[in-house]
Amino acid sequence: MHAKRFYTLSASCPDRVGIIARVSGFIAEHKGWILESSYHADDGGSGEAGRYFMRIEVKADSLPFHLAEFRERFRPIAEELEMGWKISDSAVKKRVVILVSKQEHCLYDLLARWQSKELDIEIPCVISNHDAFKGFVEWHGIPFHHVPVNPDNKRAAYAEVERLFDEVRGDTMVLARYMQILSPDLCAKHPGQIINIHHSFLPSFVGAKPYHQAYQRGVKLIGATCHFVTSELDQGPIIEQDVIRIDHSDSVDDMVRYGKDIEKAVLARGLRYHLEDRVLVHGNKTVVFR
Amino acid sequence: MHAKRFYTLSASCPDRVGIIARVSGFIAEHKGWILESSYHADDGGSGEAGRYFMRIEVKADSLPFHLAEFRERFRPIAEELEMGWKISDSAVKKRVVILVSKQEHCLYDLLARWQSKELDIEIPCVISNHDAFKGFVEWHGIPFHHVPVNPDNKRAAYAEVERLFDEVRGDTMVLARYMQILSPDLCAKHPGQIINIHHSFLPSFVGAKPYHQAYQRGVKLIGATCHFVTSELDQGPIIEQDVIRIDHSDSVDDMVRYGKDIEKAVLARGLRYHLEDRVLVHGNKTVVFR
Amino acid sequence: MHAKRFYTLSASCPDRVGIIARVSGFIAEHKGWILESSYHADDGGSGEAGRYFMRIEVKADSLPFHLAEFRERFRPIAEELEMGWKISDSAVKKRVVILVSKQEHCLYDLLARWQSKELDIEIPCVISNHDAFKGFVEWHGIPFHHVPVNPDNKRAAYAEVERLFDEVRGDTMVLARYMQILSPDLCAKHPGQIINIHHSFLPSFVGAKPYHQAYQRGVKLIGATCHFVTSELDQGPIIEQDVIRIDHSDSVDDMVRYGKDIEKAVLARGLRYHLEDRVLVHGNKTVVFR
Amino acid sequence: MHAKRFYTLSASCPDRVGIIARVSGFIAEHKGWILESSYHADDGGSGEAGRYFMRIEVKADSLPFHLAEFRERFRPIAEELEMGWKISDSAVKKRVVILVSKQEHCLYDLLARWQSKELDIEIPCVISNHDAFKGFVEWHGIPFHHVPVNPDNKRAAYAEVERLFDEVRGDTMVLARYMQILSPDLCAKHPGQIINIHHSFLPSFVGAKPYHQAYQRGVKLIGATCHFVTSELDQGPIIEQDVIRIDHSDSVDDMVRYGKDIEKAVLARGLRYHLEDRVLVHGNKTVVFR
Repeated sequence: MHAKRFYTLSASCPDRVGIIARVSGFIAEHKGWILESSYHADDGGSGEAGRYFMRIEVKADSLPFHLAEFRERFRPIAEELEMGWKISDSAVKKRVVILVSKQEHCLYDLLARWQSKELDIEIPCVISNHDAFKGFVEWHGIPFHHVPVNPDNKRAAYAEVERLFDEVRGDTMVLARYMQILSPDLCAKHPGQIINIHHSFLPSFVGAKPYHQAYQRGVKLIGATCHFVTSELDQGPIIEQDVIRIDHSDSVDDMVRYGKDIEKAVLARGLRYHLEDRVLVHGNKTVVFR
Repeated sequence: MHAKRFYTLSASCPDRVGIIARVSGFIAEHKGWILESSYHADDGGSGEAGRYFMRIEVKADSLPFHLAEFRERFRPIAEELEMGWKISDSAVKKRVVILVSKQEHCLYDLLARWQSKELDIEIPCVISNHDAFKGFVEWHGIPFHHVPVNPDNKRAAYAEVERLFDEVRGDTMVLARYMQILSPDLCAKHPGQIINIHHSFLPSFVGAKPYHQAYQRGVKLIGATCHFVTSELDQGPIIEQDVIRIDHSDSVDDMVRYGKDIEKAVLARGLRYHLEDRVLVHGNKTVVFR
Repeated sequence: MHAKRFYTLSASCPDRVGIIARVSGFIAEHKGWILESSYHADDGGSGEAGRYFMRIEVKADSLPFHLAEFRERFRPIAEELEMGWKISDSAVKKRVVILVSKQEHCLYDLLARWQSKELDIEIPCVISNHDAFKGFVEWHGIPFHHVPVNPDNKRAAYAEVERLFDEVRGDTMVLARYMQILSPDLCAKHPGQIINIHHSFLPSFVGAKPYHQAYQRGVKLIGATCHFVTSELDQGPIIEQDVIRIDHSDSVDDMVRYGKDIEKAVLARGLRYHLEDRVLVHGNKTVVFR
Repeated sequence: MHAKRFYTLSASCPDRVGIIARVSGFIAEHKGWILESSYHADDGGSGEAGRYFMRIEVKADSLPFHLAEFRERFRPIAEELEMGWKISDSAVKKRVVILVSKQEHCLYDLLARWQSKELDIEIPCVISNHDAFKGFVEWHGIPFHHVPVNPDNKRAAYAEVERLFDEVRGDTMVLARYMQILSPDLCAKHPGQIINIHHSFLPSFVGAKPYHQAYQRGVKLIGATCHFVTSELDQGPIIEQDVIRIDHSDSVDDMVRYGKDIEKAVLARGLRYHLEDRVLVHGNKTVVFR
């Protein structure tokens, strides 16, 4: 992360000769100063030309124009390269809506990072199916919406969640141990925008009560997984994972406690990568330019 | 591990008041010097009395008698406590038979540890379904048996493996990336004696080609698992696990390479725990007194 | 950590034959149910008798008497064994005073753990040399004391800190990135009671600006250390440490950010071990019965 | 690592606008297919233009010329950019001379990696101040040179080491727990060519007996450091480091044993990065393009 304003171009296209030359040539031609750049050729193990991924940070004031003109001028190159791309401005804060249930560890952790500007984002609101954290969230000057969810009102509840997200023009929705399964419809409409933290090292222990499953199997490490939410439960592209050692003396409660530390660390890292446009989705996998 | 000769008592029994007092009282009564001791009450999360596990190292020359008499005198206590137990002598080297296929990393690693006496064991023979390592093994003065395995001779081949193991009075059989599935019969006859290293973080990626499976799923860490072999493939009690970080730039071949380092480290640790009687099986789980 | 009330005996004494038998015999004689017990013989590498450490959890309602009588009855045994010992009651919450400066990560982290009862403690007050967190702390219903520290008032300021700690009958003082060096006098008066989190992997990078030092040296991992505060800066007994991987692309600011995650995790673990009487000091080292 | 033949260009130069465009433009102009590329701008935290580093792999058969002509044609660009650079050919194996003393773990580990072609190198000879591994090394078909070192013959001994290294046209000298301090003169003549594995997490525990030092200080993790050898003991640029958890129950001997596993893993990773031209030295630090 750089102190000065910069633009971040992230893109992917079919691999071929000359991609870097074409893109970096365009930037150099306009005297753009590259702060950081990452490239990855993914051939899926085939040894043949596959897909090419890139992420480039350019110092904003080194260019003679702003984003709109950058987009205008870059478009022909992107079209020529059959590129999927976007460019973002470090001066425009991302808008992150947090969904939470009754566990506080991820919420406290995210708000501490926001408070200290470690996460330089807007949090336009927090949504919860419980009202336990209303006071805490509002004390931080953040609107809190209590949207109860029960077996009978799910459709209406998720419609309300979506309405709130749209109303505040949210960029990213974070399920910070939300413990509710969003509707497939809502997931499908926001691909690459909804981030979940699952409390197991996926693909082990999909679904409910993963720490109980881990206890039963007698594993020696437990983990957490930050992933994009898709309509298939716990099957979306994985952004980040980590594990922590346990042993025979640890009860399920101990695992839950250890797990919290991994969950919040993994969620915070994954979210940060996403907000900095470091995560590019490729099928059901991710390229993460750390 | 202590420099001087010692006896290791490992045991488990139904939990109740006074177990430690009874056992340590017996040892103290005979002036036994306890070098190291570990205890664990496992209630399976019930909050009720469950099963009790222990491991005690006693300095051999502090006792007025040898193992045979220890066993004789301790038996009534063990019976009273309904204890499953054994006691071993650090002066008697364990006999470890290594089974290997065509990959060298675990074999080299184990022989280096044996050569340097880090693993203070006997290796009465190495068995392989290929003859690639015959020269290497024999150079170390260890007998090598080539027992080819093919779809038609499996029954005979495993009978030969078992015959060799019995002939050399093996204590432990180590599948050092043996890549063959032993017969359920052989597994069932040697519970807690056969140790495998599986190249995934179980229960993820059971069975064949786990690194390919990991590549497809896009996980961010890969692992290895050392476990007791039972008649169910990759389902036995887990002794030790570990993981290593990978990223999008790693091909399946890269994973295989990283994985080797985790495999040999995890196998070496798991085997050492087992040889030092630190691993007590409890249903399909293990208590590991490190 | 167990759900039901229990007593924790922690002790050390010169090593000799029969210690466990003597102590566990006493407990068994009164029908005490041992939930968890750990023992360690430390010979300092000499091979001779050294010092013996133990920690035993006994279910409170299994004993026919309360702590006062336990202490009375156990005293003769402790004297016979020349034991330093204490026993605590899980029903009596420890009183932890937090000292903080201008960084929020450890404070938010500790309050989240306290809020969720993961840390089952009293926080009678938070003391800071700044008033930045007054509102946040008071929102949680915890008294906040602003005790400014400057080069001219140090003596008076630390006297005030000590007065506040004594007034609330604090058990433990936690320097949660307090960034001030307490007076040697204050440290000496509270041995084993003041816990600091230092933002390096000690003994590397003692003193000020450890992340700058790490950046200059080009290390590939950075860490944090939780230790008891003594009158010598960053030299007290180490309770817990951990590290995180960095690389050439990380600036000092990136290290500071990564470091925060390690600092709060290491402090939380170290503090928990301490509060559960799992940490026994031995010279300038610790025995930590995890 | 790619299956097909490729060239690796590694370079650094003063940072300025257009470096990537200039270099990738040259490659694209000749239809060079970039397999992998990494870039890093190091401003030393100044926010000003600093030094620029890069590493580019180009598929050999995509270019219309071989290395000699590449060098010829690229030279003017390199001069214009004031670049320090080199280019290597994956088809030309690096020649690695291993120096070893009496501990086998790193030697066995390196030979296993060489044997399996994981390390695709030539080992023209192994040099040792003892003759313990003569048979083992020669069994692998590698020449072994016994060059005894004692307080009186150091000058002559190191001259002999250097003569052997030059004679076999070694590219890299690996001190695989060689335990001897090379002459400053020899180190100065081979900058960036001699790699050592030090058995501590530098800068902690410089010099002799680091595990004893770690034991005395009571650290909770021990580590190893792979670094370039310079004339200052244990002060050279760090390539790779890692740590492993220990606790109060571990003796110095246990640390030595755990440490071996970290040493060989760290050495193998660091050496591999070096052999793949992923390590660029920058003052007393390294850029490592993993």
